[in-house]
Amino acid sequence: MRLRIDARLDYQFGAPADVLLALEVAQLPDQRLVADQLTVTSPEPLVPMEGEQSIGRRTWAAAAEGRFEATYRAEVDIDRAQVDLAAIPGVPLRALSGLVVPYLWPSRYCRSDKHREFAVAEFGHLSGGPLALAIAGWCRTNLAYTPGSSTEDTSSVETFLERRGMCRDYAHLAIGFARALGLPARMVSAYAWNLDPPDFHAVVEFFLDGGWHLIDPTGLAPTEGLVRIGIGRDAADISFMSIFGAATLNAQSVMVERID
Amino acid sequence: MRLRIDARLDYQFGAPADVLLALEVAQLPDQRLVADQLTVTSPEPLVPMEGEQSIGRRTWAAAAEGRFEATYRAEVDIDRAQVDLAAIPGVPLRALSGLVVPYLWPSRYCRSDKHREFAVAEFGHLSGGPLALAIAGWCRTNLAYTPGSSTEDTSSVETFLERRGMCRDYAHLAIGFARALGLPARMVSAYAWNLDPPDFHAVVEFFLDGGWHLIDPTGLAPTEGLVRIGIGRDAADISFMSIFGAATLNAQSVMVERID
Amino acid sequence: MRLRIDARLDYQFGAPADVLLALEVAQLPDQRLVADQLTVTSPEPLVPMEGEQSIGRRTWAAAAEGRFEATYRAEVDIDRAQVDLAAIPGVPLRALSGLVVPYLWPSRYCRSDKHREFAVAEFGHLSGGPLALAIAGWCRTNLAYTPGSSTEDTSSVETFLERRGMCRDYAHLAIGFARALGLPARMVSAYAWNLDPPDFHAVVEFFLDGGWHLIDPTGLAPTEGLVRIGIGRDAADISFMSIFGAATLNAQSVMVERID
Amino acid sequence: MRLRIDARLDYQFGAPADVLLALEVAQLPDQRLVADQLTVTSPEPLVPMEGEQSIGRRTWAAAAEGRFEATYRAEVDIDRAQVDLAAIPGVPLRALSGLVVPYLWPSRYCRSDKHREFAVAEFGHLSGGPLALAIAGWCRTNLAYTPGSSTEDTSSVETFLERRGMCRDYAHLAIGFARALGLPARMVSAYAWNLDPPDFHAVVEFFLDGGWHLIDPTGLAPTEGLVRIGIGRDAADISFMSIFGAATLNAQSVMVERID
Repeated sequence: MRLRIDARLDYQFGAPADVLLALEVAQLPDQRLVADQLTVTSPEPLVPMEGEQSIGRRTWAAAAEGRFEATYRAEVDIDRAQVDLAAIPGVPLRALSGLVVPYLWPSRYCRSDKHREFAVAEFGHLSGGPLALAIAGWCRTNLAYTPGSSTEDTSSVETFLERRGMCRDYAHLAIGFARALGLPARMVSAYAWNLDPPDFHAVVEFFLDGGWHLIDPTGLAPTEGLVRIGIGRDAADISFMSIFGAATLNAQSVMVERID
Repeated sequence: MRLRIDARLDYQFGAPADVLLALEVAQLPDQRLVADQLTVTSPEPLVPMEGEQSIGRRTWAAAAEGRFEATYRAEVDIDRAQVDLAAIPGVPLRALSGLVVPYLWPSRYCRSDKHREFAVAEFGHLSGGPLALAIAGWCRTNLAYTPGSSTEDTSSVETFLERRGMCRDYAHLAIGFARALGLPARMVSAYAWNLDPPDFHAVVEFFLDGGWHLIDPTGLAPTEGLVRIGIGRDAADISFMSIFGAATLNAQSVMVERID
Repeated sequence: MRLRIDARLDYQFGAPADVLLALEVAQLPDQRLVADQLTVTSPEPLVPMEGEQSIGRRTWAAAAEGRFEATYRAEVDIDRAQVDLAAIPGVPLRALSGLVVPYLWPSRYCRSDKHREFAVAEFGHLSGGPLALAIAGWCRTNLAYTPGSSTEDTSSVETFLERRGMCRDYAHLAIGFARALGLPARMVSAYAWNLDPPDFHAVVEFFLDGGWHLIDPTGLAPTEGLVRIGIGRDAADISFMSIFGAATLNAQSVMVERID
Repeated sequence: MRLRIDARLDYQFGAPADVLLALEVAQLPDQRLVADQLTVTSPEPLVPMEGEQSIGRRTWAAAAEGRFEATYRAEVDIDRAQVDLAAIPGVPLRALSGLVVPYLWPSRYCRSDKHREFAVAEFGHLSGGPLALAIAGWCRTNLAYTPGSSTEDTSSVETFLERRGMCRDYAHLAIGFARALGLPARMVSAYAWNLDPPDFHAVVEFFLDGGWHLIDPTGLAPTEGLVRIGIGRDAADISFMSIFGAATLNAQSVMVERID
């Protein structure tokens, strides 16, 4: 499947500020970049961030006072094998490498230490792929997808209590449940084909035997049409635009179109 | 300075469980390992964790039902140049690499997003080394070192409100203040010479021009006698013993002795 | 001073629901009611709530599906002696009656148990009127009055951390500090003359020698023009409209006019 | 049933402090006081608190520096009709008086605003006595009675997440669920016959048609042997000993013996 992506951010800055953009498609075996281009209105050159530890690309920009626009266009071929997750076992903890272990710990938004008792009671009899599927299914059934119901302060604890949220909240809670049971899980920002309305999306990767596997706990977008941008511990790691200063959003749009 | 380290953990397990030990001294230019040995009572072999992203070494062990003892002995040469932090400027955000950027985000225990307003009011006029020193000084002056006052649930928010804690709490709050102001900061577990009473210690590294710099916000141990074990975002990353199951502590001891 | 009050609430209900209105002016020695009238659009009769323990009047109404409007008009004479609070001592705890003691405990929004350490450090040398004035002054100086910055979830802890809020947040934090130091404090909803823009207001009463004394921690309205509606432990007790169901706000207005 | 009660508190004070004792049995129709006596070691006279709004009696004492002992002895006749709660309907909100309404609001420890979504999903189809019984049954089934697992900071949110606690935590969560659904509920401290081990106890009263009805969400003590001490919104209101200063507990004991 070939997708054309067009993302635009339009912000207003009261004073100059540094900005870290995570808009670019990650280069991964199952999603090959045909071409892409990131442009911003700043007179200063873009500075690709070096030494990225996480999977993903990021770019530093300088926003001047006034309007700041960033535009990203890309074409990507996705060739992601469909996997029967229900048949994949988990992996023993003692075999986990240092690349996976950080995704076992609680983080700012995935408060796995607070979900242990519920997770054990609800999912404690499961492991591996069936556990990942049960967690995602629980979120889909028990949370109400409610635009505007959460803020950048909302962690998995509030989502668990309030039983509503948006894609990032679904992902945070699913990750929280998984880590609480020793299943490594990480957050993925993505462009999503067939997401309605179109927007940036957030989904989850669970570590099962043989590698990381994508699941969308909201069920709103097919995983075969997901184009990963950044991967991290939670939303703090993969924000598509980190602003070191103050700005207000004018407009933002994402379009993902199939072109093959 | 040559130090001899002797650390012992003695736990009781009700059922077999995997254990991740972070007791071994990190291999770094300013602390050279002369010799060390980690031994545990388990019949299963130790499994050094591979692919560690953070600085530090970790080892998987298997605890059988019953008593589990781990012993670590090491000799280390420390040769750490004393640096006048007050003279070191900070570094522009736009120059930061992906190895440093993760230490700008809020984490489970360092809730920098909650400290921004206070940090701006108290430290907003400072940057670089003077900022790092002012943050550490504030903690030393305004927190009461109180063994037993915090738990594994305590984040920098509680420490800020309750104005007391132990070394990990001092570190979490200092890191929280720093990140709130765009100064990268990370947590370091350490063996500490001249710490009284002897115990595992936790301190902070701030990223200033030229690299990471150690500060002990408690002021309880001299930085020239600190031997780093693990480095991470907060205590969740660098726990000296992560237990995937249930266990109770029988005893624990740390001895650090100067032998040159 | 004679004031004319005109308050209107306009809500939309998706289903019938009970509503408790706290719009009516309290009958108190320093504010005498000349005349007032509460009307609602419901076909069901209003039911004045009996047995009110707190100071204030409340009325039950039934909202049908659809639009629900409540209008309150009143004329009130205020004759409130100006008091030099700085000269009033506090009162020994052991003399406090059961009518005052509940205002010493932490409540949903006034988390006094979380403010003790800061309050002791900042205000611990003060008592009585000077303490009350110092607390209100601290709020005025250190909080930024920011409409829209808080929600019905915001307690004094978030206000303390974020250093901003609206009148209810100022009141909650001032009360939290006072109770933390053994000074009884309670929340007052009020109509306020010369408040710009006009709106429902929230202020604080502190218990000093001789009785309860009004202070507006925001400093936005003169206390001699405050007409008290309800008095309680915090906003949970004195909400001007408690809806037992779901409704959306269409419009709301308050006018307070001097007519003598 | 006639019960003999003997309660002792033994504390150590570093400095003189005021103390509010809530140890005395409340005078209520279903529990008649035969005789009682409260004595303390202080040279200062006890001061019965006047003007109590809540049900219950309280007494001010002055603790000198050093040891402070309070002893309470009472004989009480309990004659409490057994009621079939399952048959009692709830009461319409619009009929509730100002004596009951405060027990609908969230409080420091009963965070009903945070339990609404779960309560609606789990209990939303019930009302009146069956709702009260289902809530108590849920607590009994889903919480683990775990001495030492909670602190004076623990609210119903933590208890809900951690699924364990002691009698006060059971009561707080049961009250939180009830208020979230518009069922008035309040907290009761009590001496409890047949509680093993003997201790102060905390239970709940729900407001159903005809009045307040006792339920013990822990199921540890029979309601016919409960002697109520204080009644309030949550533990903040009814602490058996409120200390305005610092003290450490030496020992505490409660004995409840049937003597008819």
